[in-house]
Amino acid sequence: MAIKEDIRKMKLVSPYAAASTNETRNHALMAAAEALKANADAIFAENRKDLAAAEENGISPAVMKRLAFDEHKLEDVLSGISQLTGLPDPLGKKTLQRKLDEGLVLNRVTCPIGVIGVIFEARPDALVQISSLCIRSGNCVVLKGGKETAHTNRILFQLISEAAVRSGYPEGSLLLAETHSEIDELLECEGLVDLLIPRGSNAFVQYIMNNTKIPVMGHADGICHIFVDKDADFDKAIRIIRDAKTQYTAACNAVETLLIHREIAPSFLPVLASALHEAGIQLRTTAEAAGYIQDHTADPVPVETIETSEFQEYLDLIVSVGIVSGLKEAVDHINRYGSHHTDAIITENDARAEQFMQLVDSAGVYQNCSTRFADGFRYGFGAEVGISTSKLHARGPVGLEGLVTYKYKLYGHGQIVGDYASGKSSFHFEDL
Amino acid sequence: MAIKEDIRKMKLVSPYAAASTNETRNHALMAAAEALKANADAIFAENRKDLAAAEENGISPAVMKRLAFDEHKLEDVLSGISQLTGLPDPLGKKTLQRKLDEGLVLNRVTCPIGVIGVIFEARPDALVQISSLCIRSGNCVVLKGGKETAHTNRILFQLISEAAVRSGYPEGSLLLAETHSEIDELLECEGLVDLLIPRGSNAFVQYIMNNTKIPVMGHADGICHIFVDKDADFDKAIRIIRDAKTQYTAACNAVETLLIHREIAPSFLPVLASALHEAGIQLRTTAEAAGYIQDHTADPVPVETIETSEFQEYLDLIVSVGIVSGLKEAVDHINRYGSHHTDAIITENDARAEQFMQLVDSAGVYQNCSTRFADGFRYGFGAEVGISTSKLHARGPVGLEGLVTYKYKLYGHGQIVGDYASGKSSFHFEDL
Repeated sequence: MAIKEDIRKMKLVSPYAAASTNETRNHALMAAAEALKANADAIFAENRKDLAAAEENGISPAVMKRLAFDEHKLEDVLSGISQLTGLPDPLGKKTLQRKLDEGLVLNRVTCPIGVIGVIFEARPDALVQISSLCIRSGNCVVLKGGKETAHTNRILFQLISEAAVRSGYPEGSLLLAETHSEIDELLECEGLVDLLIPRGSNAFVQYIMNNTKIPVMGHADGICHIFVDKDADFDKAIRIIRDAKTQYTAACNAVETLLIHREIAPSFLPVLASALHEAGIQLRTTAEAAGYIQDHTADPVPVETIETSEFQEYLDLIVSVGIVSGLKEAVDHINRYGSHHTDAIITENDARAEQFMQLVDSAGVYQNCSTRFADGFRYGFGAEVGISTSKLHARGPVGLEGLVTYKYKLYGHGQIVGDYASGKSSFHFEDL
Repeated sequence: MAIKEDIRKMKLVSPYAAASTNETRNHALMAAAEALKANADAIFAENRKDLAAAEENGISPAVMKRLAFDEHKLEDVLSGISQLTGLPDPLGKKTLQRKLDEGLVLNRVTCPIGVIGVIFEARPDALVQISSLCIRSGNCVVLKGGKETAHTNRILFQLISEAAVRSGYPEGSLLLAETHSEIDELLECEGLVDLLIPRGSNAFVQYIMNNTKIPVMGHADGICHIFVDKDADFDKAIRIIRDAKTQYTAACNAVETLLIHREIAPSFLPVLASALHEAGIQLRTTAEAAGYIQDHTADPVPVETIETSEFQEYLDLIVSVGIVSGLKEAVDHINRYGSHHTDAIITENDARAEQFMQLVDSAGVYQNCSTRFADGFRYGFGAEVGISTSKLHARGPVGLEGLVTYKYKLYGHGQIVGDYASGKSSFHFEDL
């Protein structure tokens, strides 16, 4: 149980990491960036070991691309660090200042969450992003990356961690877990680890959620919808749907279900079907939708007919298509079958868009743009530790703000509650 | 499974409750207040039934006081409702407005959590407070109160619920669970209920946490500390400690452990011991502390000697006393053995107080006042649904702000991610 002991020490260190100054934390990040730059060749050499092993194991080229850490990826993470140091300090912000009575002052002040465990896929740039977000926000972090990039992770971690300690960030604030068995140890660290952020497949995230008492932030699935309203611009709709499905098919913010307003189904569905077919996207539609595609087209594209209840997350070049009578049916369908991740309406009717965005109960609700925009970098957060579909704490892409909480500081001069209960004293609330 | 069906309907209703206007929600609360006033005699009559049954069952006078709903309690809840209607609308606040690029605008907007289940002790005024907080924040709520006040709960719920619907708050937004078996049904409503708030004993809250996949907000225990620094004003310290232990012994914010700076132990401990003994408080101290009390006093008070590891939550007129070498040891002890609820330092040294308040990892950190101040009403929140020791989402007393979350609204004109990935378009972040 080696790692549990380290995490126990980390818990005691975490208040001192939380108390580190903005200067120390920014200095740590700048020193880390310097170290990464200065050791680029050594990093690339370690990464080549991982890539060679991956090739031997017959890893697919798409995955190989994610494992690679090259000049381009290095530039990306350095620019991410530089963005982070440019953001205002997320800690010590007073979000409430209230005089309760003469000489009794309450402040609510932002502070780090404490000890965070992040389990992430084999992507070395993720290690840099996550650790720099945690340092910037005064958190301690246990990092467990994919084993396919173990060599790269190790050198990146070592460089960042040493730079942080050299800059005055407390020793023991960062930890690299390297073996799979350490995940199970991590899951048992209730009371020591304040938050777990698992990234990866639906099944993996579910496994984490079901096997720990530590609060978990993340999302298990992403069934994103696009509702094409009767007042949609067809060209915009097709362009957006194609992007949302094909730009990165395996992403959680890729679209999985299209809902088409019945009034435009006869005119829109045949055009949509051939555009999607052309882009290599398979269609699984309700019988009604299939009818519009097959009866209204001279040369109809192939369609598989399924029930609404069979609509699912494909993470592939497949999309479900259904027909709805209008906004209410679209909203009810999305709230019932969706995963509260990101859902869009295509319409030129702004009032209807606003209604949709009000009623759809998701972290992201969009008008006339691709669901693929749901991402910390695209929201201007610099980086993200993940995307949350929980409604508590952080929702949507989680950047610095999602890594802080707050505490209440009450400054008194001997006040006791007995005096207020007896009526001898009374509260005089005044926001400062 | 009657209640699960009702909750399923509630889930579909909840976006419409979330979309209700500020006027509707305030009108619902004012109509509820009117209805409670107009039916005061009927409410008191129902409450007498509960009190009669409680008396027959030999309920203790202290508990009887909590079950009672009289003129005085009615006034209290009416003043609470009036405070709530006076607070600004917690919904629809834009907490981020950012242009991502020309014609692509991101807003982060506050919205209700959705469907909340609250399981609370037999206190009819709690039913009024919780339901009015939920209506004010646009949430739907399933209320399960203690069975000892079933008659009172039923009439209060009926009056509030009817007033809300009459005012335009959607029908089905409020639900009263009346049987114990419905708690287990409620725990199974994952995906329908967004948040559970259990109130009551440590064991009960633990039971809820261990038996549901729904996020739970609350606290299981409250081991609050007071650290008496070497620069403490002794009179203040004794006054505060007495209040924090005796003002409401069974409360989670009552003090359970005193940590005394070693330098003042010889002079302070004997005085403290006799003051606490006089107030009827039993002392359980470490051997070192016992030494100071017994060796330095002519007529020493009785002391039971225990180990630091035996310090616990008593919820009774008993307090643990230990000695620490200074701030660091006090902080480490509190962070290790405490429950991250509310902890205080008694000192005239403001710099040391600030250090303590920085390093102690609790929802409330106090200087020179009683831990009993940790309470929504005393913080000026009007009312609270409970106190949270979780670091995620809401921490400390939970009022309106803890009952809202946010969503991201993105307004576009056909933008797709492909254009930004290819470099054809690029982001131009600008906060509006």
